[in-house]
Amino acid sequence: MAAAYDPNNIFGKILRGEIPSHKVYEDDIAFAFMDIMPRAEGHVLVIPKEGARGLLDVAPQTLGELMKRVQHVAKAIQTAFSADGLTLHQFNESAGGQVIYHLHFHLLPRWDGVALRPPGTMADDAKLAAQAEQIRAAMEPYRE
Amino acid sequence: MAAAYDPNNIFGKILRGEIPSHKVYEDDIAFAFMDIMPRAEGHVLVIPKEGARGLLDVAPQTLGELMKRVQHVAKAIQTAFSADGLTLHQFNESAGGQVIYHLHFHLLPRWDGVALRPPGTMADDAKLAAQAEQIRAAMEPYRE
Repeated sequence: MAAAYDPNNIFGKILRGEIPSHKVYEDDIAFAFMDIMPRAEGHVLVIPKEGARGLLDVAPQTLGELMKRVQHVAKAIQTAFSADGLTLHQFNESAGGQVIYHLHFHLLPRWDGVALRPPGTMADDAKLAAQAEQIRAAMEPYRE
Repeated sequence: MAAAYDPNNIFGKILRGEIPSHKVYEDDIAFAFMDIMPRAEGHVLVIPKEGARGLLDVAPQTLGELMKRVQHVAKAIQTAFSADGLTLHQFNESAGGQVIYHLHFHLLPRWDGVALRPPGTMADDAKLAAQAEQIRAAMEPYRE
């Protein structure tokens, strides 16, 4: 678990605008966008702007600030989709389930009786755009 | 997702010392202990001392500070068990997988080729005590 951060990953490219994404939130610390292979309707990823591979190498101060944004985005997701619950996943290294090596928190809105879908199916792009808009519309201004 | 925090839950009782636990870390913000129904060897829970039901109602400042402790404990777990990876889960409300209604982060050490176990099997108490000791021995002093 000691490999260095490599900025040439998909989320690094999204942060640099080299790959498009459906953004739901951005500030100096964090960037949040729709997962293109959602395991639930409204599945969002929250990542730090700082280059970090995972939970163990991110600067503690960055992690603390990032987590406040995770909560902020989670509240908007819950409101936007009237979710009954919310599941948070964060994976480190291949053994831990990680596929893209830039720290990310999965925010999965949940509803009673609805299981998570298996990973790997691409979502319709227009649908993701509409969901991102729903989340942005439900979001309060972020306050420190 | 709007129910209030009820301090009469198992983790509240652990925090008050009314129920024993295998502690791996404690400070003014956080308490970390062995999960008695581990889904992986070395499965630890990190909770805030503040009474919070989940990700949405915890005070943002508390969440930020708590997450630094989650990282701190995660590093010790990784070292103690030479884990190849680490999976973090956090569940909110029944629909989101929550069973005990005090905010908690699951830290699951992972090894290549070893799947998570299904939930629900009690661990041997002496084994948990030994694993807690391993984690404490691997832990650096916490630094702000």
